[in-house]
Amino acid sequence: MPEIRLETPAEASRAFYSAFASRSIEAMMAVWSKADDITCIHPMAYRLTGPRAIRRSWEQIFHNAPPLRFHNSEEQLTLSGEMAVQALHETILVEGESGPHPAIIATNIFRLERAGWRIILHHAAPLPDVSEEIPEAHQVH
Amino acid sequence: MPEIRLETPAEASRAFYSAFASRSIEAMMAVWSKADDITCIHPMAYRLTGPRAIRRSWEQIFHNAPPLRFHNSEEQLTLSGEMAVQALHETILVEGESGPHPAIIATNIFRLERAGWRIILHHAAPLPDVSEEIPEAHQVH
Repeated sequence: MPEIRLETPAEASRAFYSAFASRSIEAMMAVWSKADDITCIHPMAYRLTGPRAIRRSWEQIFHNAPPLRFHNSEEQLTLSGEMAVQALHETILVEGESGPHPAIIATNIFRLERAGWRIILHHAAPLPDVSEEIPEAHQVH
Repeated sequence: MPEIRLETPAEASRAFYSAFASRSIEAMMAVWSKADDITCIHPMAYRLTGPRAIRRSWEQIFHNAPPLRFHNSEEQLTLSGEMAVQALHETILVEGESGPHPAIIATNIFRLERAGWRIILHHAAPLPDVSEEIPEAHQVH
């Protein structure tokens, strides 16, 4: 895949979610920085560091995943020099299913590199399920 | 509380966890930027935006919390101009309890402001409990 030019953090974000929805590993990795310290935290999973581990995780996700659509909401973008922080809710709709999956809350960090804006951190985590009590153990934080 | 000078992202991080452990709301809010778009995501909770909502959440946490100690690990800090991204594992030890609470994975973002380094985002989420299966619903992400 030829290198893509992502001119703004918003454009990089769109490319990230488009690659995710279309389950394209090459499109996904083209949005990520190639730096050794890029970081990816999937929901309820351990942190992954570096392009090799992150690529493998997306390969596994895309291997299992049916076609998806994203309905992102609550987007907030803070730009500060050559970095941008995006916080948003991801709602995933899976083809053939009657309703959306439980929403995910995500923090994405983009950095302006020579090739344009690239993602350097993706931290996704479950939002509270209002039907469940929050376990006691979480109440100190 | 007089304004504190935090000279590095690492110093701001230490001030954040020291305020957390000592349950001091003034020390905690002194580490946060005063910007309207500061963001805080506690484990399994909705996103909070802005100093007022974030202050209230820490007041509630500190009101309920017993004395704590943090054993942070797996720290990784990426500096890029006037922003710094920290990813780490937080292990909370509560006085009088026999073992640690389930570990938390956190992303913190610090920004260099006129008053020094300040936290602008804290995203904390549970790490997987190896004794539990990950629910089917999470497998698409």
